[in-house]
Amino acid sequence: VIVDVARDVLMREKDLHGVRLLVTGGPTVEPIDPVRYVTNRSSGKMGYAIAEAAVRRGADVTLVSGPTHLDPPAGVTTVQVTSAEEMYREVLDRFEAHDIVIKAAAVADYRPAHYAGHKMKKNDSSLVLEFVRTPDILAELGKRKSDQFLVGFAAETNDVEQHAIHKLKQKNLDLIVANDVSKPGAGFDVDTNVVSIYSRDGLVKELPKMDKRAVADALLDEIKGIRDG
Amino acid sequence: VIVDVARDVLMREKDLHGVRLLVTGGPTVEPIDPVRYVTNRSSGKMGYAIAEAAVRRGADVTLVSGPTHLDPPAGVTTVQVTSAEEMYREVLDRFEAHDIVIKAAAVADYRPAHYAGHKMKKNDSSLVLEFVRTPDILAELGKRKSDQFLVGFAAETNDVEQHAIHKLKQKNLDLIVANDVSKPGAGFDVDTNVVSIYSRDGLVKELPKMDKRAVADALLDEIKGIRDG
Repeated sequence: VIVDVARDVLMREKDLHGVRLLVTGGPTVEPIDPVRYVTNRSSGKMGYAIAEAAVRRGADVTLVSGPTHLDPPAGVTTVQVTSAEEMYREVLDRFEAHDIVIKAAAVADYRPAHYAGHKMKKNDSSLVLEFVRTPDILAELGKRKSDQFLVGFAAETNDVEQHAIHKLKQKNLDLIVANDVSKPGAGFDVDTNVVSIYSRDGLVKELPKMDKRAVADALLDEIKGIRDG
Repeated sequence: VIVDVARDVLMREKDLHGVRLLVTGGPTVEPIDPVRYVTNRSSGKMGYAIAEAAVRRGADVTLVSGPTHLDPPAGVTTVQVTSAEEMYREVLDRFEAHDIVIKAAAVADYRPAHYAGHKMKKNDSSLVLEFVRTPDILAELGKRKSDQFLVGFAAETNDVEQHAIHKLKQKNLDLIVANDVSKPGAGFDVDTNVVSIYSRDGLVKELPKMDKRAVADALLDEIKGIRDG
């Protein structure tokens, strides 16, 4: 039995050999002026954990990352971006050349319509800012998809399953990883996550509270299982 | 001569003994919904460097800090806050009990007027958000000041001297530290800064590009020189 387990561990160790995997992580930053900006809560830990797990398991990994305080993972091609527009360009450029694409970044879906080149002065008691939609990266990947396996994330605070499956279908994803970021131990700036994985047919796997590195491996296991048929 | 220099260094080492110093650092975070927020560029490095220099020189130091990725400095009473409102409360509560107050934090001057308890769904191609002014901490301190020595920071991108001196007078400060954050080596997320220090009477000191720790000591030197008359 010990020999079987050891063989399983060793086998798994390089079970993504030859697979080209693209993962995104971190937030994007959308400037209002040189000092102020709008962003999303995201430490980048989930995306970085996926990149690290995939490279350890033998994949060729590219990480497109928004601004984080994490070190680029060893053995991973890391592309640093700031805004949603930049992330859109860098991900779209690389999409064709990858087999699995996992979008773990928390991309801003709105950016300020106007950028003030000089720091705005605070003269008024209130202020109205107009925001416009950023390009929807995941929807665009879903449209262009040929044989890529496409995985999205859904950070929700309510009706998690319903929102997640709606997003999966609308964007033509293969899997979606949903987490209720209002739960303790889930979501932003913590080392753990509490996620459920859904396919078009419904719940695939509900994971307990786990270290993000363990979530990464469990997700890669599910993807591998489905792709291998 | 070597003896004189050594004595100066040793003398300076505890030259703020007994002084109660309050310093603020980092940005503030103003939530739009559980996922999205508005903030200012600030690593917190300048405020933390001042706290560290002051405690090394013998002061009793309180640091009120917005969210940063820095470790609380040893020997400093650190109070963590998130929003401008919280920073206002924590600083005002402590103002009376301090001799020197240095506001190095990049406090958001506007916050979203409405907070959406659930993550907003992105249905529309554009979005208008209303912002309201946060309480002006520095102006309030300037009004309440009795014998405290009050120092502000001005991060500017244009007409630096003019904006800085205007701010100093308007808010009844004793000194203001101005930096042109559009200059290389100044401002956000770097270890160096390029600052000029102004009093009501004009330029006090123009410092070259320096490590933020050296800027901290130079600023404390100026404050001490003026307070000691």
